[in-house]
Amino acid sequence: MSKTIGVIGGMGPAATVDFFAKLLEATPAERDQDHLRVLIDSNPRVPDRNAAIAGRGPSPGPQLAEAARGLERAGADVLVIACNTAHAFAEEIQSAVKIPLLSMIDATADAAMESKPWRVGVLAADGCRRAGLYQRAFADRGVEALFLSDDAQQEFMQLLYRIKAGDTGDATQRAMERLAISLNARGAQAVIAACTEVPLVLNSDALATPVISSTDALVERVVAFART
Amino acid sequence: MSKTIGVIGGMGPAATVDFFAKLLEATPAERDQDHLRVLIDSNPRVPDRNAAIAGRGPSPGPQLAEAARGLERAGADVLVIACNTAHAFAEEIQSAVKIPLLSMIDATADAAMESKPWRVGVLAADGCRRAGLYQRAFADRGVEALFLSDDAQQEFMQLLYRIKAGDTGDATQRAMERLAISLNARGAQAVIAACTEVPLVLNSDALATPVISSTDALVERVVAFART
Repeated sequence: MSKTIGVIGGMGPAATVDFFAKLLEATPAERDQDHLRVLIDSNPRVPDRNAAIAGRGPSPGPQLAEAARGLERAGADVLVIACNTAHAFAEEIQSAVKIPLLSMIDATADAAMESKPWRVGVLAADGCRRAGLYQRAFADRGVEALFLSDDAQQEFMQLLYRIKAGDTGDATQRAMERLAISLNARGAQAVIAACTEVPLVLNSDALATPVISSTDALVERVVAFART
Repeated sequence: MSKTIGVIGGMGPAATVDFFAKLLEATPAERDQDHLRVLIDSNPRVPDRNAAIAGRGPSPGPQLAEAARGLERAGADVLVIACNTAHAFAEEIQSAVKIPLLSMIDATADAAMESKPWRVGVLAADGCRRAGLYQRAFADRGVEALFLSDDAQQEFMQLLYRIKAGDTGDATQRAMERLAISLNARGAQAVIAACTEVPLVLNSDALATPVISSTDALVERVVAFART
């Protein structure tokens, strides 16, 4: 396990902490020296991804590409972005470096396929939806992707900003659970936590169908990569 | 809050996650963009600090100094080390860079002084003790520093390596509590969690005296620095 992982993070920072913690948990280790070296650039000052994709703000692309270059320079062998929506800028980021960028979108869609669903429900931020990231990923895999209704999507975005403000309490958890269940009620056989804030509040035990965490899926992929 | 924090971590990695999580919690923020930029080099492959200080292994100093240079190059305005024992190499690290290194030892000793103790009990790893880091810090402040008995210190080191192997369960928590209480029983008016693994298992509510977490003390200091 001698690969060094570079993490483009801070979107939001709590999701980056969560990714880092889960990466450790997923690494078989008896002592410090068995763990992976992890370089993290947690830069919460990157412009808002959702606003940029909606054409209402500056692009975070140049800053994300600069973070990628910095991590490569610092010795990363592989890059990940601990944010689904930021994958709308994945090409710009990948083209800035020579090391590979492992896609959270592909890792998550692949993880979802394990239960062989034909219809999944995707909890994704506005920018991630607008950029069509999961629509394409599931279309490629022959799976129908459902999204929240317009009203529910608005509520979802408010929840995300509440989580980013540090509110991961009971009311937020219940509200997220209701949104996930609304996708099940429309026939989703799995719910995709396609935003890294979602696993901070959504208890997968509360749902009757599998919940695929994009954080866990990317962790699994990067640990597998590090072992090669 | 426009400062960028550079974290020399990975000793152990779980303690670095803990530091990162507490840094976020301590930062007043309503949205991602209110948070500090944090650059982390979590390098668990740094040679064992305790072995090096005991003269039984290579020095981690050069690698720690290299990490410091990398973080400075990546844009850090200030450095911290999320490990008490590694402060034995603080001069070597500081002399490698132009940006300041905030001392966890000083931050912790200062935090301990808030309850005006004349005798404190220090839970510190072998290397940290052998390097005299807290002995000097408390002598400078006119406070007597007690350490564990030889047998208890051996047990403490075994606990640290258990925590590093991922065991933060009930038995480990109870054992750490007993060690802390043994310092109280000898007259310590405060217990210093002078190893970043200790706060991962020691519940301060279990003790009758204050517990000063070196992680929290450094977080407080760096957040105060970032506001200036």
